[in-house]
Amino acid sequence: MLKNDLLLQALRGESLERPPVWMMRQAGRYLKEYQALRAKYDFFTRVKNPDLASDITIQPIDSLDMDAAILFSDILVIPQAMGLEVQMIENKGPFLPKTIQNKADIDALKINEAVKNLHFVFDAITVSKEKLNNRVPLIGFAGAPFTILCYMIEGKGSKNFDKAKAFCFTKRELAHELLQKITKLTILYLKEQIKSGVDVVQIFDSWSGLLSPADFNEFSETYLLQISNELSDLAPIILFPKGSWYALEKLSHSKASAIGIDWTISAKFARECTQNRITIQGNYDPCKLYQAPDLIKKDVHQLISDFGKDKLIVNLGHGILPDIPLKNAKAFVNAVKTYKETR
Amino acid sequence: MLKNDLLLQALRGESLERPPVWMMRQAGRYLKEYQALRAKYDFFTRVKNPDLASDITIQPIDSLDMDAAILFSDILVIPQAMGLEVQMIENKGPFLPKTIQNKADIDALKINEAVKNLHFVFDAITVSKEKLNNRVPLIGFAGAPFTILCYMIEGKGSKNFDKAKAFCFTKRELAHELLQKITKLTILYLKEQIKSGVDVVQIFDSWSGLLSPADFNEFSETYLLQISNELSDLAPIILFPKGSWYALEKLSHSKASAIGIDWTISAKFARECTQNRITIQGNYDPCKLYQAPDLIKKDVHQLISDFGKDKLIVNLGHGILPDIPLKNAKAFVNAVKTYKETR
Repeated sequence: MLKNDLLLQALRGESLERPPVWMMRQAGRYLKEYQALRAKYDFFTRVKNPDLASDITIQPIDSLDMDAAILFSDILVIPQAMGLEVQMIENKGPFLPKTIQNKADIDALKINEAVKNLHFVFDAITVSKEKLNNRVPLIGFAGAPFTILCYMIEGKGSKNFDKAKAFCFTKRELAHELLQKITKLTILYLKEQIKSGVDVVQIFDSWSGLLSPADFNEFSETYLLQISNELSDLAPIILFPKGSWYALEKLSHSKASAIGIDWTISAKFARECTQNRITIQGNYDPCKLYQAPDLIKKDVHQLISDFGKDKLIVNLGHGILPDIPLKNAKAFVNAVKTYKETR
Repeated sequence: MLKNDLLLQALRGESLERPPVWMMRQAGRYLKEYQALRAKYDFFTRVKNPDLASDITIQPIDSLDMDAAILFSDILVIPQAMGLEVQMIENKGPFLPKTIQNKADIDALKINEAVKNLHFVFDAITVSKEKLNNRVPLIGFAGAPFTILCYMIEGKGSKNFDKAKAFCFTKRELAHELLQKITKLTILYLKEQIKSGVDVVQIFDSWSGLLSPADFNEFSETYLLQISNELSDLAPIILFPKGSWYALEKLSHSKASAIGIDWTISAKFARECTQNRITIQGNYDPCKLYQAPDLIKKDVHQLISDFGKDKLIVNLGHGILPDIPLKNAKAFVNAVKTYKETR
């Protein structure tokens, strides 16, 4: 039994004294304990060694006492497991030397073997659960099919992922074949994560906001819904289609338990679109963590009263930035913990 | 008298047979005539020599027959004229070796002298108008104060402009001092552009979409409104706060004549928010110009019937991409010209 299951309660929509809090990218980056491991081991060693990955997963719980842990891993283990080389270039980001260009490339991608290639993730989950010792829930995750396609086609990070989008628009059938293949593996992958012990699953669609509403329906939503339909009986799901403000209303009717939003969506807009059908996660601008701790506290209390304390998971609208002082991150977490409804 | 003043009619909200069309970044990039000049002269030579700048301005009118020309220039001539060095590194983007960090840096920025430093822009306008010979209106432009601040603080392009935003959030008073100074110069600059002959003015807030609605009000809208209030009696104004979908309703009450939107905003949402109070400019995804010309034509006709042909300026939702084939760009323009309302 979990000692703190606020996150699960919020995902079930139960009324709470205060909302739960965690931060995207909370494991890594700004923590000196993480930097110590980063100096010794390269990125994929940190991801693939279950002892290291689980240590990094637990670090923010030990030092900041969040209401949830999220597995330290990467969304690009999926293309890697399917057979594509993925390099992580420090301070620059991912690089895939061979990208997907045609049907033969897509046909060559593996699915069943890929799940076996991902055993290090399931092991990291098992060890993380042991180390967490039921303190808080563990969140597993995967990239959304559209976002994974973006990297598979483009081969690296990009401001607008023009090549990936051009592939979708000019090779529509191939794009859907690829998306369907990624979706199939993602479902198997997340089922195995849940079997290994994660309590919640988040789907990161980091680049869906580059699509028009109609293209989002076609290239992103279809596959997000397949995933949520397959998994919602097994664990609560958080969908995070970053930037896709226009999709809120429709996704609030899905089988997901929560939708993550960024700071461009006001509490009023989010609640009006979703009519309290679904829990909202978000949406503090990570840049505001540069402010003094007392201002962060004031903002967080305002955020909670704007959204209302129920059906809310307090989080950032994007990952925490690497140079945020620890005391500012602590101020964010503690502001949620000290929230008292004043009405 | 202009032979084709469709753009001006659309900006006045008049009912038309078909909407006018032009493309952001239509001058440059994808045109072989432009590439020929690019091989001979560096970026700021092209911008600062009135003969070259006006030639580049006219090129798309000669080869694609748009309904408007837009001056070939750059939004960063403003920080440059204020005293900051701006380099344009080919294939990489702008670089400002010395950025704004404190009050002394802001105090050192020039305003009155800056207008004189910008005479090459006014000369390029005069020559462009001569070369256009009243065929179509000429659009002048400037960057919005928030977007200019982004480059002044960050010193280069960035995915999230975290440093610039952190400056706004942690040095609020200084940020407003800087924004006010940029605004003051921008008003003088655009007044002089109008005096020199531009028929319309567009304000590019390329990075406003990185702000929350509340921060947009504080750091962007305030200054956009100052500019439109000062200029709306002199020329029609198009505001383009890219990504700031949440600002549509409020800006539709401003003194601007049109708002530019990107493809993440549906016709339905745009028209509902603005209730036909203002002309909408946009919003085709530039990536869709990679499609075959017949598909582009179909899309453009759909776009016009979704928005309705009146109070519409057909454009892209962002600049045209450098490797778009000329025939695809032509298909876009011609699709608008052949539009016939079928109801």
